[in-house]
Formats: sequence, structure tokens, C-alpha cells
Amino acid sequence: MKKLLGFTCTICNKDLEWNPSTYTCPSCGTEGILDVKYDYEFLKGHIDKKYFAENKNYTMWRYAPLMSIEGKKLKQTLKVGWTPLYRSERLAKHLGLEKLYIKDDGLNPTGSLKDRASAVAVAKAMEAGWDTIACSSTGNAASSLAGNAASMGLKTVIFVPERAPQGKVAQLLIYGANVISVKGNYQQTFEMSAAAIEKWGWYNRNAAINPHLVEGKKTVSLEIAEQLEWQVPDWVVVSVGDGCTVAGVYKGFYDLHQIGLIDRIPKILAVQAAGCSPLYKAFLENKPFEPTEENTIADSIAVGVPRNPIKALRAVKDSQGTYITVTDEEILAAMKLLGSLEGIFGEPAGVTGLAGLIKALQEQTIVSTESVAFICTGNGLKDVQNAIQAAGEPLKLEPDVKELDKIDLFHNMK
Amino acid sequence: MKKLLGFTCTICNKDLEWNPSTYTCPSCGTEGILDVKYDYEFLKGHIDKKYFAENKNYTMWRYAPLMSIEGKKLKQTLKVGWTPLYRSERLAKHLGLEKLYIKDDGLNPTGSLKDRASAVAVAKAMEAGWDTIACSSTGNAASSLAGNAASMGLKTVIFVPERAPQGKVAQLLIYGANVISVKGNYQQTFEMSAAAIEKWGWYNRNAAINPHLVEGKKTVSLEIAEQLEWQVPDWVVVSVGDGCTVAGVYKGFYDLHQIGLIDRIPKILAVQAAGCSPLYKAFLENKPFEPTEENTIADSIAVGVPRNPIKALRAVKDSQGTYITVTDEEILAAMKLLGSLEGIFGEPAGVTGLAGLIKALQEQTIVSTESVAFICTGNGLKDVQNAIQAAGEPLKLEPDVKELDKIDLFHNMK
Repeated sequence: MKKLLGFTCTICNKDLEWNPSTYTCPSCGTEGILDVKYDYEFLKGHIDKKYFAENKNYTMWRYAPLMSIEGKKLKQTLKVGWTPLYRSERLAKHLGLEKLYIKDDGLNPTGSLKDRASAVAVAKAMEAGWDTIACSSTGNAASSLAGNAASMGLKTVIFVPERAPQGKVAQLLIYGANVISVKGNYQQTFEMSAAAIEKWGWYNRNAAINPHLVEGKKTVSLEIAEQLEWQVPDWVVVSVGDGCTVAGVYKGFYDLHQIGLIDRIPKILAVQAAGCSPLYKAFLENKPFEPTEENTIADSIAVGVPRNPIKALRAVKDSQGTYITVTDEEILAAMKLLGSLEGIFGEPAGVTGLAGLIKALQEQTIVSTESVAFICTGNGLKDVQNAIQAAGEPLKLEPDVKELDKIDLFHNMK
Repeated sequence: MKKLLGFTCTICNKDLEWNPSTYTCPSCGTEGILDVKYDYEFLKGHIDKKYFAENKNYTMWRYAPLMSIEGKKLKQTLKVGWTPLYRSERLAKHLGLEKLYIKDDGLNPTGSLKDRASAVAVAKAMEAGWDTIACSSTGNAASSLAGNAASMGLKTVIFVPERAPQGKVAQLLIYGANVISVKGNYQQTFEMSAAAIEKWGWYNRNAAINPHLVEGKKTVSLEIAEQLEWQVPDWVVVSVGDGCTVAGVYKGFYDLHQIGLIDRIPKILAVQAAGCSPLYKAFLENKPFEPTEENTIADSIAVGVPRNPIKALRAVKDSQGTYITVTDEEILAAMKLLGSLEGIFGEPAGVTGLAGLIKALQEQTIVSTESVAFICTGNGLKDVQNAIQAAGEPLKLEPDVKELDKIDLFHNMK
């Protein structure tokens, strides 16, 4: 593909030639995660604002020319991407922000931003003629892979840690996946999947290892930029677990900046749960991360050993942004706030970014005159148990009209 | 509004003048549910295929000119509608159907087709200056009202029967609704809400009573027609509870036929759960329905006393379609089939239509050469408990590479 120059290793910085079956750097091994390198001069000649203005494909595939994929060969897929970007009124006012945008990526087909990566994984696997894809995941990558693969007729083998919420596991069984529940943490689950993938030679959807998946995830930034008519906000806020999503968010803006469609890269506010924040600590102390416990209700970002630390740390640093942490209580409060003021129901990891934004405003890391886009990464229906904690209880009445007097319009009505 | 002639009562057939605060027929009382009547000659002069081809509003509001609403005054709302219509390959082949389309309405903002009605309810309430909306619902109408109202800053009071799944109740509490759980069935819940609405004078979102809500629901048909470039399928398949959705499905095609955008109205296959099928029985016996038990896992259509029987029966009859029933086992099987062959996860009521389609093919009510569009009305994540029944269990392994030998590629792999 003309648009692609090849890869660059995130460890040794060596350039590699384009090869569709390359995953990681041959010199650095599986730690040597790659960046996809484009010929930006070539792209400048082919992609401009007019191209997008005339493009009627309202899915992530409208950006296929900016991705490491043969757009032409794509058959119909699930409708991934082009999720709504809302201009917030009520939440913005509540937070004292002049300009707040909310990107609701929980409206992707399987309910999370990970659909963007899984759609690419499925497309790449099909390009190369594979019939089985495997991955390990805390849940969303798994269900998105299972759903996207099912729609294309590919088989999936999915390794999940036993703590993955019941809803997410049910979802991927419904999608017909072969699900293997590992009685251990995320790191052990990842190792089991890696061993199995080596043993049977399946296509590997583990997001850090596969350089094309970040190229799928970056479409969330391409959409934010286009939906704002190429006027990017001062900050983009997103939660961080494995590090691949925040890497994708940065890469999207980086690419657009390189080809001249936007005039700067927004600062990234990367938010981790206080109970599992290895990248936050590494960022602040400017040293490699240390494996940590996974103590948070935000299961989708409960990753004690992040697989993509270099890209995740570099993305935030290069954007002039920063890392922050929030407690589970702050996450639950953010969930209620987003729901009641905007009508958007996010899962814990989905609203972790909002909790971080609130804290960043309190600490004046972000000030009220700066514009902000917050990415809600997953749908609240994925994890009802935690939502119940945040939600409270309904008023219970007997089926008798007299019981209506118990509704106190002034005291228990909102 | 010039486009509106007024209303026609579904009982006495009397015409009423347009009045924005009219709900039901003054002569027939609350049973006298109204149809909204348009000036189709006027619409013919204003709406054509070119109008839609040039319309870049990819939400249900692109059809505002065909709705009983002042489109101009609308502020930003949640992105309701313009859900994907997929051409099925694998499921179609499995069923032996030449042309099968799947409309995934579970991808609406709160996860169900009911968002189309709730968005209208909120818009109408705001047009008239109300600040509180109320309804009773088995769940989806409730959560969609709560979400859509929250996004616009309106208060909601929602009555749910105690059997509403936990996920749906949590969702609406997160949306900040005042939730009242009635210790009774749907009928008792409806009566409690009606009494409360009368007592406090809130805006009434109960779908049967409010004639504008069917006008919101009909947008699902407008979309199907437009997404198929105005070549409608032979059959449209949808599940039926209260009767408002099937009434909306018919009304959408009826309107398009009247203004000449489509050349015929598809036959409607209306599907009820065998454990709660008053409209099925009424249709087959050609007499008024009798209240029945509510014994089905498909809670969103478990309505023993449907509120909109006249429209629901007439819609199917006028379309030359028919009613059919399916068991809970058939519903669960359809859920697994839709997930594993298409990557779409529907709630029980969402996939009930598909179960009905399978039965109709077996009984040769529908034949393989006919084209079919099936509407999946709700997202499977809304009701994980039942999905778990359909899904089965994952393979559980200790975190030890030796355990991988338990994966039997030939026997337990799909």
C-alpha cells in the first residue's frame, strides 16, 4: 500500500519495512511494540476536508484511507464508529466549563470503543485468510471481537479473567465465541492466551501486540476532529487501562496534524483508577511502571500490568497532557452525574474520564475557559451491578391509589 | 401546522381538529385512541426522494416534516434513530431466505426502539412548556423516557412493575428519574401512573394514550424504506406487547405509501410470546382481546392487557399480515442464533420477532423467495439474566499452560 512506509519500533526506534504479517520488532521481541508509519506527503495529496465532506459512509471505515488496511476489500461489517459527539449544556454548566463535548462510544455495536480495534482485527484476519482469532481481555475487547467476528463468520477463542462481569461473559457466549475463563488475574489470562495462540497459530487480537489495532482506535479522534469541523478542543479526556486506547487517541490527532487537517494536537488527560494506577505512577515519577494490584470497580481499566506502557506514556507526554487518578466513589458519582444531566449511561471505566475531568478542574489542571472533549468508552448496561451501587433504590408502593400520597413532591422528587 | 389535518378516533372514526393538547377522543374517553391525520397532498409538494438524499441529519429527526411536531424548535437531543439496517448473509442462509434485512434498534441511545417515542414525548412536552413527564412501563419506555428527558433537563416520574429487570431499573435511576416500583403487574402499574398523572397533572408519555408517540415509532419504518432506497420488503417482522410499536411500524409505511414514496405496504408478521398473547388470540378469533397472564421471559412484551389493541390489530390486518406466537425456548434459541451468526445481541423481546420468523418459515406463512426485514427492538445487555440461560457456560481453566490441553479443538470448539 502506497500510503504506508512501514513500522517504527517503540523501543529501539528502528524503522521496519511494511509487511502485513509483522506484529512486533524482530530485534526487541514481543516488548518491541510497533508504530505504523504513513507517508504523510502521499496522504496530503489524497485526503482533504472535501474528501470527508463528500463521504457518505458514516462508520469508522470512512477513515480507511488513513488506516493500515485495504479499504476496498471490506465487505459489510457491523456499524462501528461515527458515534455521537454531543455539545454538553447541563453538565458543562454544572462543572463550570464553557465548552464541553461528550463522545458516546458506548453506542458502538457491542457497546464499547473497543469495537474500533476489533473491527480492524477482523478485517486484517480476513485479508490474510485466517479463520480463527484469539485474544485475552477484561471483557470489552473480548465481546467486541466476538461480535465483530460473528458478523463476518470468523471463529473466536477468548480468554477472560474470572472476575469479568457476568454480562460481558454472557454477551460473548451469545456471539458464539469459545470462551475460556482463567482462574487468575488479567496478567495470567494474557499469558494463557499468548501460549494458546503460539500453540495453535490463531490470529492475535491482543491490542498491544498487534500494531493495527491502535490504528482502529485512533478513529475516535478522527471523528472528534471531523465532528468539530477540524477545530480540536484544548483537552481530550479518556480513561486508561492497558494503554492502547490512549495511544490510539493520540495517534489519531497526530496523523491529522501531520497531514494538516488540524492545527495542533489536544492535550490528553489520561485517567486511571486509584486502585490500579501503574501508568499514573510511572508518568509522575518518569520511570518504568511497576506491576500493581487491580482494585477497582472499573474492570475494563483494571490492568495491573499494562501491555502498552511506552505508547501510553509517550502519548500523554507528547500531547503536553497529564495523568490523574480517581477513586471508585468518584467514578460512581460521575456515572450518576453523566446519566442525570446528559442522559448517557456509561460503565465505570466509561465514566472514569469524567471523574478525572472533575478532579482536574478542582486542581486547576484544566481551567473553565479551556474546551474539553470527554470520551465515554463503554455502555453502562455492560455492568449493571456497579450501576446499582451508584443508582440508589426506587420508591416501592403497593398497587393502591392511596399509596400515591407517599410520593412527596417536595422531598423525594428530583 | 399546515401538514396536519387533525385526528381520527380509532373507535367512532370521528375526525377531530388539530389541537396540540388533545390526547384521546372526547366522545369515547380514554379508550378512544387517536390517529394523527396528515394532509398528504400538502406533504407530496414538500417531501420527495431528493429531500432525503440531501438531508444530512442522520437521526430520526430527518423525518420531522412527516411527524406531528414542530421540527424547527428542536434543540440538540440524544442521537435517536438512523440505526443500522444490515443485509444478512449468514442468518439468511441458515434460514434459507433469499433476502433478509436486520434493523438493529438496540443501538438507540438507551438501547431500544422506544427511544423513538420518548424523544417525541420530550419534544412535545417542551413545546408545550411542561417540566415533568410521567409514564408506566415494563422497562424500555421508562428508561428511554428517563434518558431522553435527562438530556433535555426535564423531570420524570416513572412507574414500573416490580418484575422489571434490575438492569432496566438501575438505568433509569442513573438517568435521575423518580422511580416508583409498584408491587403488582403491568395493568396495576399503569393504573397507578394514570391516577398520579391525573392527580399532579404531569405530561403523559403512556404510549397508547398519547397519539404522537406512534408518530415517533413509525420512524423505524421510514428508515427501513429509505435505507432500502424506497424498495420495501415483502414482510416486516416485529414483536408485539402493548401494540404501539406494531401500530407505528404500519403507520410509517402507510404514510410513505400515501405520499407516493413507496409502491406498497409490507405485510406485517406480528409476534407475541406464547405465555402472553392476547392480541394473537384476538386476531385469530376476530374478536376483542381478553386479558391474559404475563408468563414470558420477554418482559418488554409481557403485556396481559395491551393498551393499544385497536391499532395493533388493524395494523396487521390492513397490511395483509398475520399474528404468530413463540415459546420462551424459541426466543432463547433465536437470541443465540442472531448473536452467533450476525454479531447482534438482542434482548428477549428484541429477538422474539426472529423466533416468529423462523416459525413462519416452518409453517410456510413466509416463503424463502419473499424478502423480509426483521426489527430487533432492544439491546441484549438490558437483560443479562435471560441471556445467561441462552448462552451456556465458558470453559474454566486454572492459570497453568498445561490446562490448555483441555481445549479440544474438535469437540468443544465452534
